Amino acid sequence: MRNRVLLVFIFLGFAFAKAQLQQSTESDSLMLRSIYDYNLTQSKSYDWLDHLSNQIGGRLSGSVQAQQAVDFTLDELKKVADTAWLQPVQVPKWTRGTPEYAYFQLADDTKVKVNICALGGSIATPETGLKAKVIEVQGLAELKELGESKIKGNIVFYNRPMEPTNIQTFEAYGGCVDQRYSGAAEAAKYGAVAVIVRSMNLRMDDLPHTGAMSYGDLSITDYIPAAAISTNDADKLHSALNKDSSLEFFFEQNCKNWGEVTSYNVIAQIKGSTYPDEVIVVGGHLDSWDLGDGSHDDGAGVVQSMQVLESFKSMNYKPKRTIRVVLFMNEENGLRGARAYARDMKDKDNHIVALESDAGGFSPRGFSFDASDAQMVQVNNWRQLFKPYLIHYLEKGGSGADVGPLKGNNTVLIGLRPDSQRYFDHHHAANDTFDAVNKRELELGAATMTSLLYLYDKYGVLVQKLD
Amino acid sequence: MRNRVLLVFIFLGFAFAKAQLQQSTESDSLMLRSIYDYNLTQSKSYDWLDHLSNQIGGRLSGSVQAQQAVDFTLDELKKVADTAWLQPVQVPKWTRGTPEYAYFQLADDTKVKVNICALGGSIATPETGLKAKVIEVQGLAELKELGESKIKGNIVFYNRPMEPTNIQTFEAYGGCVDQRYSGAAEAAKYGAVAVIVRSMNLRMDDLPHTGAMSYGDLSITDYIPAAAISTNDADKLHSALNKDSSLEFFFEQNCKNWGEVTSYNVIAQIKGSTYPDEVIVVGGHLDSWDLGDGSHDDGAGVVQSMQVLESFKSMNYKPKRTIRVVLFMNEENGLRGARAYARDMKDKDNHIVALESDAGGFSPRGFSFDASDAQMVQVNNWRQLFKPYLIHYLEKGGSGADVGPLKGNNTVLIGLRPDSQRYFDHHHAANDTFDAVNKRELELGAATMTSLLYLYDKYGVLVQKLD
Repeated sequence: MRNRVLLVFIFLGFAFAKAQLQQSTESDSLMLRSIYDYNLTQSKSYDWLDHLSNQIGGRLSGSVQAQQAVDFTLDELKKVADTAWLQPVQVPKWTRGTPEYAYFQLADDTKVKVNICALGGSIATPETGLKAKVIEVQGLAELKELGESKIKGNIVFYNRPMEPTNIQTFEAYGGCVDQRYSGAAEAAKYGAVAVIVRSMNLRMDDLPHTGAMSYGDLSITDYIPAAAISTNDADKLHSALNKDSSLEFFFEQNCKNWGEVTSYNVIAQIKGSTYPDEVIVVGGHLDSWDLGDGSHDDGAGVVQSMQVLESFKSMNYKPKRTIRVVLFMNEENGLRGARAYARDMKDKDNHIVALESDAGGFSPRGFSFDASDAQMVQVNNWRQLFKPYLIHYLEKGGSGADVGPLKGNNTVLIGLRPDSQRYFDHHHAANDTFDAVNKRELELGAATMTSLLYLYDKYGVLVQKLD
Repeated sequence: MRNRVLLVFIFLGFAFAKAQLQQSTESDSLMLRSIYDYNLTQSKSYDWLDHLSNQIGGRLSGSVQAQQAVDFTLDELKKVADTAWLQPVQVPKWTRGTPEYAYFQLADDTKVKVNICALGGSIATPETGLKAKVIEVQGLAELKELGESKIKGNIVFYNRPMEPTNIQTFEAYGGCVDQRYSGAAEAAKYGAVAVIVRSMNLRMDDLPHTGAMSYGDLSITDYIPAAAISTNDADKLHSALNKDSSLEFFFEQNCKNWGEVTSYNVIAQIKGSTYPDEVIVVGGHLDSWDLGDGSHDDGAGVVQSMQVLESFKSMNYKPKRTIRVVLFMNEENGLRGARAYARDMKDKDNHIVALESDAGGFSPRGFSFDASDAQMVQVNNWRQLFKPYLIHYLEKGGSGADVGPLKGNNTVLIGLRPDSQRYFDHHHAANDTFDAVNKRELELGAATMTSLLYLYDKYGVLVQKLD
């Protein structure tokens, strides 16, 4: 039965799509070839990323570097866009302060130094640090079982690793990140004095990985410090706890929340020649964490999005629809840029497509679509066009955090899907740096995005909802 | 017409295959899941590679390290195989000697130092080095046009880069490597005193990339030295020549050919329980170049091949057919191991499949098959099984240098195809090192190989030749 319904969908979808797809032939194939050729030989994306990463560096919301990134990308986009502007947005400002310091202390008073970093949004420890016994758990659910009697006065150590057998590493991340995001808020309810969270990293190494956390609805007086510990040190601590469950953990961090400051989304567009009111958005996020230089997360997505516009301009392709780059501010710790954009523009403009690149600058494999079945028929019709470029993954699924708020109005939401096996080695850590991005892989990603948006520009999007 | 014939092939092939494919269902899907799970959690491959790369290092044919690799892999294979043995093979021994030194000298006597390395098999320069003017060419064909009058007494500088727009980087390599392999032999015929070859590298950097070269049928007295120059320095030299075509290039290298020595292929197998006479070979090459530690080329292929056997053994899977690991010696500069294996074994045993991993330890994308159309029908029937693992590339094409000599007898020849965009950044250069291999990507490659060979073991191979 289910198959039969699906078949009907497919045929219906095909009928709807047919008029719009009739030209998808030789000329599209040649255009994609030109787009890839251009991107692999004349792209500006790698030089732009070099500037963002090596001249500016980590771009935490509210930082000087974030503002430098706003200024730089606006200037560059002005060179290729019809119009470019800033959209003000209030963002939280949080600073890490001096480097964190931590150790655990064995019964014989040996201190074993470990690598930690404050989670983004966490409060500081007392100035002289914080020392307590450690309760290791595999997740939030264990807190209730343990209860206040076991937790109160202790540090909760969340140590559930990312699932290594999951081929889709973002799913493995999704299966763990509640520990980081909500770990402190939940543990505080049982009287924990701090939390230490195993880094969201599939690799064993010494680098702690930061990331957003939230105190939820806790009263500010109940906030407790939260830090990530490297995977190697998480294992080390786990082993030590197995031998001596009463060991003590010490750490100090002097991070600080400063309240809100004004920042900006950077927006630029080429106006459509035939259907200017149909808007195709492509974007990434300008802000990054502070430990590395944010090359993969999300410098790559920023420069790839800019490159879409630059490619169209330099190749002298005049889009029929409006192609708009949106470089979102504050994806990492607030999503304020995405929310502000959707608040002001979602119902003002007709967004037919919104494509996000925020999964690293690795070799592209395809796209994930938040779209109707009929819209997927259209996409599947383009599958053969992408085959020469080894783009094979065109599947229904999530899109991205920054385009998510545009959901509705039949907008096709899309996320670029690069190879993700190395991504979490670098994610939010000190080794998310320029040298970890390969020029060709970055350029292939931009070419793949440009190609897909060329097709959407040419054929538009199905508005019939069949599902 | 062509399509019609193809269609007939497909239907015929399908009929032939049907009997053998009827079981390819749920149990295969579960087995593949088990294979990937095992490899992503309990694989020995990364630790083996650590030993090959960091305890042994570069394994040039005839070197102490190559022998250490023979000993190590034989010992490890004995632990998982029914039988393991060495096949003696005569290999050329060549040594690099002391590090090479080179510069070009401008009209004002400024010396610009450049990074070069001797090509494998090259002779040395005179002890005091070699200095001459430079003739830049884009390939072998230009030599004839220039003729002896322009070339005699000069250094020929081959500067045709790898084609950046080719998505298949191995094809881009194939389009250039004649300069490296035959450049000296051809230039010597016109009286060149040496050749300098642009490194086979898609990236701009300072690392020279070595690789095999041949003097062809030249008389030994006509041999001239050959070296590779880094891509950055090739561009630098090109620019300088544009300004001053009479500049001089100096280099010295004291590499040496020592004649032949005895080395070994390492062979190990689990005997088939039902069809022991049907042999499935899986292999990589034990030797490597000397500048790095040969982690991608081909340490990865060696440990992945060993891992196939280890996985079957540890998962308690009893193959119906004989699964044989062959670690070939001397792929890089002679292919003596592969030739010796084929000479002794090709017609002695019934090789139904020979799979090679020699394209790096990167994220696997699929396989390239040297197989009949009917055999490809069988492969295409397995396509859905691989989809959860993002394995999409199952295409006709080349296989690999070491399994190539087994062509014939209806043997299906196969090459693992990992993502290749970064491969030539490391290929034959000092940065082909352990840190450039990602553990998960290596393991996914081994799991993918094990999965394919499980299917061939279970279903066998079509012997009907339809094409």
